[in-house]
Amino acid sequence: MGSSRSKISFSELLPIAEWLPGYKKSDLAGDMLAGLIVAIMLVPQSMAYAMLAGLPPQVGLYASIVPLVAYAAFGSSKVLAVGPVAMVSLLTLSSVGAYARGGTAEFIALALLLALIAGIIQLAMGAARLGFFVNFLSHPVLVGFTSAAAIVIGVSQLKHIFGISVSRTEQPYQAIGEIISALPGTNSVTLTIGILSIGLLIYFRSFLAKQLLRLRVPENIAASIGKAGALVVVLLGTAFVWLLGLDMANSVKIVGAIPTGLPPLTIPDLNIEDVTALLPAAMIISLVGFTESISIATTLASRRRQKIDANQELIALGASNIAASFTGGYPVTGGLSRSAVNAGSGANTPLSSIITAVLIVVTVLFLTPLFYFLPQAVLGAIVVVAVAGLFDLKSFVHIWRYSKTDAIALLATFFGVLLFNIEVGIGIGVGTALVLYLYRTSRPHIAVVGRVGKTEHFRNINRHKVDVCPETHAVRIDESLYFANARSLENTLLNAVAENKELKNIVLICSAVNQIDSSALETLERVIDELRSAGVRLFLAEVKGPVMDRLKSIGFVDRFGEENIFLSTHLAFEHLGCANGV
Amino acid sequence: MGSSRSKISFSELLPIAEWLPGYKKSDLAGDMLAGLIVAIMLVPQSMAYAMLAGLPPQVGLYASIVPLVAYAAFGSSKVLAVGPVAMVSLLTLSSVGAYARGGTAEFIALALLLALIAGIIQLAMGAARLGFFVNFLSHPVLVGFTSAAAIVIGVSQLKHIFGISVSRTEQPYQAIGEIISALPGTNSVTLTIGILSIGLLIYFRSFLAKQLLRLRVPENIAASIGKAGALVVVLLGTAFVWLLGLDMANSVKIVGAIPTGLPPLTIPDLNIEDVTALLPAAMIISLVGFTESISIATTLASRRRQKIDANQELIALGASNIAASFTGGYPVTGGLSRSAVNAGSGANTPLSSIITAVLIVVTVLFLTPLFYFLPQAVLGAIVVVAVAGLFDLKSFVHIWRYSKTDAIALLATFFGVLLFNIEVGIGIGVGTALVLYLYRTSRPHIAVVGRVGKTEHFRNINRHKVDVCPETHAVRIDESLYFANARSLENTLLNAVAENKELKNIVLICSAVNQIDSSALETLERVIDELRSAGVRLFLAEVKGPVMDRLKSIGFVDRFGEENIFLSTHLAFEHLGCANGV
Repeated sequence: MGSSRSKISFSELLPIAEWLPGYKKSDLAGDMLAGLIVAIMLVPQSMAYAMLAGLPPQVGLYASIVPLVAYAAFGSSKVLAVGPVAMVSLLTLSSVGAYARGGTAEFIALALLLALIAGIIQLAMGAARLGFFVNFLSHPVLVGFTSAAAIVIGVSQLKHIFGISVSRTEQPYQAIGEIISALPGTNSVTLTIGILSIGLLIYFRSFLAKQLLRLRVPENIAASIGKAGALVVVLLGTAFVWLLGLDMANSVKIVGAIPTGLPPLTIPDLNIEDVTALLPAAMIISLVGFTESISIATTLASRRRQKIDANQELIALGASNIAASFTGGYPVTGGLSRSAVNAGSGANTPLSSIITAVLIVVTVLFLTPLFYFLPQAVLGAIVVVAVAGLFDLKSFVHIWRYSKTDAIALLATFFGVLLFNIEVGIGIGVGTALVLYLYRTSRPHIAVVGRVGKTEHFRNINRHKVDVCPETHAVRIDESLYFANARSLENTLLNAVAENKELKNIVLICSAVNQIDSSALETLERVIDELRSAGVRLFLAEVKGPVMDRLKSIGFVDRFGEENIFLSTHLAFEHLGCANGV
Repeated sequence: MGSSRSKISFSELLPIAEWLPGYKKSDLAGDMLAGLIVAIMLVPQSMAYAMLAGLPPQVGLYASIVPLVAYAAFGSSKVLAVGPVAMVSLLTLSSVGAYARGGTAEFIALALLLALIAGIIQLAMGAARLGFFVNFLSHPVLVGFTSAAAIVIGVSQLKHIFGISVSRTEQPYQAIGEIISALPGTNSVTLTIGILSIGLLIYFRSFLAKQLLRLRVPENIAASIGKAGALVVVLLGTAFVWLLGLDMANSVKIVGAIPTGLPPLTIPDLNIEDVTALLPAAMIISLVGFTESISIATTLASRRRQKIDANQELIALGASNIAASFTGGYPVTGGLSRSAVNAGSGANTPLSSIITAVLIVVTVLFLTPLFYFLPQAVLGAIVVVAVAGLFDLKSFVHIWRYSKTDAIALLATFFGVLLFNIEVGIGIGVGTALVLYLYRTSRPHIAVVGRVGKTEHFRNINRHKVDVCPETHAVRIDESLYFANARSLENTLLNAVAENKELKNIVLICSAVNQIDSSALETLERVIDELRSAGVRLFLAEVKGPVMDRLKSIGFVDRFGEENIFLSTHLAFEHLGCANGV
């Protein structure tokens, strides 16, 4: 029941070859409505995230056209909505920003290259069936990263909301200092627009849908109106600035002229120096983007009893990013809120994404002049409200209560991102999680057990009233045996022997041992020798089938003696004359 | 039964405070004989290893005095023989050699500093009870490293045996090229001495003791004579060169003048630049040295039912290295052959090491002029024969047969050391082992099980003829649930649901789950929600006590419902109306 299969059918590699020819008319209404609602969300969001990434707004729109079609062709999810997202936009800013100034032609060119590299990495990982690599990003590391990124993103938008200019800084604590010293130059009109936008967005998101429901508006219409907050603040903000001339009279910064027309065909400039410089960030983007996307896709698919193939998802996201790099975009991935809206609005097939893409084409062809007077503060407000929910104190408290070691990995990532940068933070987090995991398994729970009454049950002598034999110890190890804990087992057994001079037999109960790697096997063979030279015999009990198969194949069982391996602890004790706890 | 204790007694911190006041006269004969035999081995070996490390021969002798006393005071092993060893000498050469030319005053100063840093690291790790870090060096990584190091060391000694001079090179494949092009300049007299020495050493090691036994020489005397090979070749080689004047007539390179007198008091020069440069190598030395030493100490102690404390060993080795750095030595650790000889010759207490140290003092005070005519080829031969046994093809074949993933980690280390350098090789090996371990556990064995006949046993439906229910699946996962495999479990369960439209209940059998980390808990909670929204209920069975305690503490059991967790799979199936495989 593993996730890998040796044979992959054509329709699995190119899902559109299956769903498009078999398209049912009855699915069309749902797909069109969902495609429209996602487009209404996506137009303002994509411009806002492009601004967050240090890119002109049209780049966000361009990244919302061909990448969506590419995902519709290759993706295994029926409802995932691909496009610019906050986290990946931040990663773009932090990596490209180290080599070029935001908004410049060089910056845009590097963002295209970044999308290409990230796409190639995802495509290659998918083709090589390496989806498992994403497992390195454990839940605590993701929570730590997301919460820190929410702070970094929120702080980065304050300059738009306050209408001040600050120089770009690497670390958020420096940025906060810069902002505080620039506060006297706050543009009060801009700030008013920003605060009103935030208030309106929160109202739409958290209260409006419930109020509409109470007014007996049908549920799906109420939900759709609740999602249109970004569009409403964009329209209102633009109208106010245009009608009152706030851009000239009060120096409110506006988006300005957005080029009209189809996305340009762009060919990323593949020079080795830039590729090397962007590679670490592209690795992080491909993994973080994939993790975010697959989680959403899996959750949404399971509700409909549909399947998601992790490696196919890598291929589809890779295709989307490569498409973005050739059509003037920047790195994309599956987004949470838009995908949920897509599914909730009745999307049945990836056609809804293609409809969204068509509507964005209409936007870039005809509607961009409408955004000329759009205040940047409104886009900043959209980003701030979108990421505010990502700061996840609840998960931290939960993880802290459940496992201190996991909480340490979370905090290491969180402060790593805040004090250094995203790559270092994630690196520290992943390393910490690995070391702590090994530390935990390197000190497995090892219990000396004894017989409960006259039964065949054996329990921990420290927790239960049990009968024991002075000459025979039964030791249960509650972990697979591998390099990190082989020495711990050796110490435990040899110390038991050193402490009990009467001890003659040790029965090692392997009921919790799912595998024995070669380090542990080597240690086990050495322990047997060491115990023998100390006059103590070792026996095994309850060895699992697959473990036993491997031990047999290497000749261990022959050397050790099959008669020294017992099906149950009870049989071992009977054999050793310890049947009634004497 | 863990290895850490919160209270540590004084005699555990300073074992000499226990064994010396209680010293028994009856132990003295054994300690004196063992001390003498180890000294006879140590004098030539310590000079040979110093030469291998790029240091003058007296440095090896100096490293064999105070460090031995320091270990005798702090060590928890009664018979471990500390001093210069091949592996650590090679590490010293490769790390210090990057910053200074062998034999220069600067080189010697850096070697002292390296000993100090490695000692401080060991001391600190011991004090912080961080002995578990050594577990990162898995058996395959150690075998790969040792085998590659044996080649590097062997190649490095060829120039002494052929009597040629080659410039120092980083990689062994470069060194072999250098040696081949220098072969026309071979000194045939030197080569003859080298080959005869190697032959004699092999004869002593492998044949002489057996022959003496056949001649009815008592066993312990025969064994002792067998160990004196190095001393014999040193005496013979020195005598020949001196008597025949080979150093002048045939340009045979000799050791030359060794200063007479006690080791100098040296104070390592602690400047931040050198410390930073040597830090990675010092880390590797402290870990590799400790790993080698603790393995030997554990093996020897177990035969006598004595205890070894890993953290105390770190403290003792740290003290030895710090002692070496203040008395003109270089990094040391416990050596395999000398420790085995020490134990085999009847050493009862660490007094034997103190006796060895006293005899080395006698050597540096009075006997160094005897080594003036000692040919370098003899020392080279001693090193080559000592390391030849470290090339471990047998372990490689064994590991390859047992586990391909472990063999990959071994080969990665082996070629990493040969093609790059030791630090990079070990880094690659440790990283590979970790990734492969996670890969293995990220795809755990997951079996759908069914009832065997009318019993309460449940086995894999693919391996056994069992009864199943179409509406209820029992799924057994054979691994702890943690971040690397949480997603795999989720995929398996959701795919099972997507493939079987009749499925209504899943029983997850947790008999092999020793822990659930917060990533897996988060996934489990999500899976429960996802299954519920797909109309499938999840139940747990056979959850272990410690896992259940943690799940209760975080409120999972209350949310999930204690009635959904069953003691056994049988009870779960009965409850779900699947009692007789209907």
